[in-house]
Order: sequence, then structure tokens, then C-alpha cells
Amino acid sequence: MTLRVGAVGLGLIGGSFALAMRRRGARVCGVSRSPQTTALAKKLGAIDDDRAESLRECDLIFIAVPVRAADSVFAQVSACVSPRTVVMDGGSVKAPLPDLARKNFGANAGRFVPCHPVAGAEKSGMAAARADLFEGREVVLCPAESDADAAETARDAWRRIGARVSDMDAEEHDRVFAMVSHLPHLLSYALVNQIDESPARVRELMLRHAAGGFRDFTRIAGSHPEMWRDICLDNRENLLSAIAGYRLALDKLESAARNGDGGALFEKFDAARTLRNKWAEKLKP
Amino acid sequence: MTLRVGAVGLGLIGGSFALAMRRRGARVCGVSRSPQTTALAKKLGAIDDDRAESLRECDLIFIAVPVRAADSVFAQVSACVSPRTVVMDGGSVKAPLPDLARKNFGANAGRFVPCHPVAGAEKSGMAAARADLFEGREVVLCPAESDADAAETARDAWRRIGARVSDMDAEEHDRVFAMVSHLPHLLSYALVNQIDESPARVRELMLRHAAGGFRDFTRIAGSHPEMWRDICLDNRENLLSAIAGYRLALDKLESAARNGDGGALFEKFDAARTLRNKWAEKLKP
Repeated sequence: MTLRVGAVGLGLIGGSFALAMRRRGARVCGVSRSPQTTALAKKLGAIDDDRAESLRECDLIFIAVPVRAADSVFAQVSACVSPRTVVMDGGSVKAPLPDLARKNFGANAGRFVPCHPVAGAEKSGMAAARADLFEGREVVLCPAESDADAAETARDAWRRIGARVSDMDAEEHDRVFAMVSHLPHLLSYALVNQIDESPARVRELMLRHAAGGFRDFTRIAGSHPEMWRDICLDNRENLLSAIAGYRLALDKLESAARNGDGGALFEKFDAARTLRNKWAEKLKP
Repeated sequence: MTLRVGAVGLGLIGGSFALAMRRRGARVCGVSRSPQTTALAKKLGAIDDDRAESLRECDLIFIAVPVRAADSVFAQVSACVSPRTVVMDGGSVKAPLPDLARKNFGANAGRFVPCHPVAGAEKSGMAAARADLFEGREVVLCPAESDADAAETARDAWRRIGARVSDMDAEEHDRVFAMVSHLPHLLSYALVNQIDESPARVRELMLRHAAGGFRDFTRIAGSHPEMWRDICLDNRENLLSAIAGYRLALDKLESAARNGDGGALFEKFDAARTLRNKWAEKLKP
């Protein structure tokens, strides 16, 4: 029987999920707050149907909206959730989800599976969606409060479109991603802000001479501001801890530079290079 | 007549310069502190000759050694410098160079042209050298104290191997590169240090879940630790100012997150994205 999939929110993540599922034979109902986005999704072959009422007939509903919008979108979707539906989200912060699910899905809260597809990009929107976005990418599930069969359906769906699936405790997820994702974004934004707020002549000189290192370091400052605002607010405590730890690491390098301590600088830089290269090596297929 | 070029130091920069010059018909004498490197340079076709005494016959000598080694290498090379030689360096910090040139080259100090080929990479060494490394890349000259004809010879040499050449005041160069290159490297090293110093179990979790944003942000932490130690020490004052400015930019984002001020976060992130994308757009050929 044909799997019926709903995608609520047709940005990069929701749109790519729709494209990938449809390519694998699912019937996809896609819903967006913007009629232009829905029209584009149809044109690009991502969805079969854009009527919100069709969500009632879906086996699996993927809600991919900015984290701050989750509460109101969950409320709207709740009428379409039955004991045989499975609902997933795609947000980057996971600890708040079980409460949101209980609040909005009530007796069906166990049908909800918190998911984090780790597949962001500096591009955003339906126009940037790709059927292969999740291939080889990681999707983290935090199913501690989900029904076992709902979690298994969610895992199957992600695997079907090429993702590697792993489970994690939600609090631990948020601490880990604060460090390896949310903090780097904030640090990259801060550097570009610093340059942006420099006097015009200096800023132009800086941008004229910026090269590859700057390009790599600041690529993530091209990310979606609304999404990153929401992540910073929803994962605030972990992010503030990560910033505090970062200041200590930066203090050490700054003191070493101030004191002309070349030995300490070399040791820190060499340790960083070793760890970074070990990590990059593991990434290779 | 065949141009005779000397390359002192056969790392990524010196080795690539040798390869590029030899490919364009120059006769290249290459000198390294390591016999293995010299042997590799010969094997890769980067140099014709590895005898230090051949530097005396060179029209143009490019000294590409870590900044801290410049003083002693300049002293060694000084005996090969005559009023018809042109000498260039390739360091990332430029203000100290005129003093070093006067000290070591004496009456021939005007033959020295401070150069900064902006073509670093996270790879280093002769094995990573490429004949096309400088094609389309920027080379900044700080020739305020150089003879006009020496500066012109240096410009010709860089243009011959495909680089775009511009002139800059040495002090301004060091301030600008502290911001767009030296600071980002330090920030990237600090993040990897922070993760490296986390408890082993947490560190392994972080590295397992790190993805594209982390990869981009930390690519430059794979850079040569000796070279970056030297840059931090030689451009210390500008780097410390840049760090101080960076702390202010980070403070603003941190306060906004702490106060739950989504409007301020959005505004800063949006401004950063706008500037970053405008810059990236200009880069495209």
C-alpha cells in the first residue's frame, strides 16, 4: 500500500523530505504558510496535494517549521493525529518537545517522535530543497517518550531516504549540539558583526582582503536568521554554558599571545590540529 | 635571457612558487633546511639546483620561511644580495620587515620587497605544493621602503604566475589581516581546544555528531601550528585589539540570548547574513 506522508512547512528540510519521499513512491501532502511556496513545491514535483485536510489521511506527518512556530503548528496539526498516525518534528533543539507533544497531542502524545535531521545548509527555502539532502546524513531521534512502534516507523522513514539514524537522550542532545553547532554559528555571526560595525573604510579593506580562511569560518553566518534566533532562545542555557567554556579556551590563547608564550601557543594549536584532523579523517567515506 | 630565481624555504608557499616559476621557464635554485625536502622538490620538478651558493647568481630570491626564522635566514641570504638582486619574503605579518631588511641587507635594503601571498591552506609542506597555487590569488606588497624598480620586478614575478597584485601600507596590512585572517584562526583553534579539553565521553559524542557547520568553522584549525604561533607573536598588538573587539561583539549576542531578546538576535544575525552574502557574491568570478 502506498505510504501517505504529510509535510508541514516546505522550507529546505520539509521540502527536501517531501521530494525524497515522493521519489520513493510515497503520496505526499504538503502544507505551507505561503501560497507561493506551495505552488513552487508542486512545480518542483515535491507534493501531490496541498490541502491541509488531507493530513488526516496521512500515516506519517513531518512538521518542519522554525522552532518558535512549533507550538502553534502542533496545535493546528493535532486534529489530524490519531492512534495510527506517526508525527515527527525536525527542530535542532529537542528537550522542549515532549512537553509540547503532551500539551498539543494529549492522549496521542506517544505517536510523536522528536527528530533532528543534521542536514542544515547556509541555503534555505523550498527553492534550495534537494531529494538527496538526507543521503548519508545523520538523523538523531530522542524517542524516550514515544511509542516503540512510532519510533520504529520514524526510523524506517529516515532510513528509506538514505539517512543514518541514531538515538539520543534529549538533554544530552541539546548539550552536545550547543557545542558543535549552535556555538560555532554564534561565533561566526559575532565575527561578521564585528566587521560590519567597523568604520566603512576599514570594513571595505577587510572585505577586499578576506580570503579562504575567512570564507570557511563565516560560511555559517549565511544561515537563516529566524531559525538561528529560535535555536539560541530554545537552547539558551546550554548555549550560555558553551559560551562560558569558549571564553576560557579563548582566554588561554589570548594570555599566551599577550605573554609572548610561543610554547603554549604551539602546544594549543598543535593539539587542535591533531584533534581536527583525526575528526576529519573519520568523516571520509 | 632566462630568469634565475631562488626559493629559500620549500614549504607550501616556497615550493609552489618554485614549481610555478620553473613551469614558466625560469631556472630555479631551491634551498631548504631539510635534505628530504630538497630531494622531494627535485623529484617533483620544482627546482633545477639545490646549492646555496647558486643563490648568488639569482636575479630574484623569494624567502618563504616561518616568520620567526626570517631574521636568521635573512642574515644567511645577505651575502647573496647585490644591487641588482631583488629579494622578497612571503610572511603574513609585514610591519617588522623594513627593520629586518635594514639590519640584514644594509646598503642593499632597498632591494627587498615585503610580500604577502594570500594563499594559505590547511595543508602544508612541499608535498602539498602546486604550480597553480597563486593563480587568481591576491599578493599584497608593502614596498614603502623598497626601490621602485625592485617593487616592479616583484610585481612582474607574481603576475607572471597568475596572482593579482596590490600595494598596502604595512601597518594597515597587519591591522586588516589581524581581523580577517589571524583572529578567525585563533577563534577556530579555541573551539577545537575547548572540545579537546572536554571529558572523553562528551568529546567523543561531540565529534560523532559534528557536521558541516563544524567542519567549515574548524577547517582552519588544521593549519600549521608553527606558522600560526609565529603570526600570533609577530602581530600580537593587532591581534589583541581584534580579540578585544570580538569579545564586545560576542557580548552583545550573549546578552541578547541571556535576556531572551529575539529581536536583537534576529537583527544581528540578519545583518551578518547580509554582509556575508554580499561579500561572497563579490568573490564569484
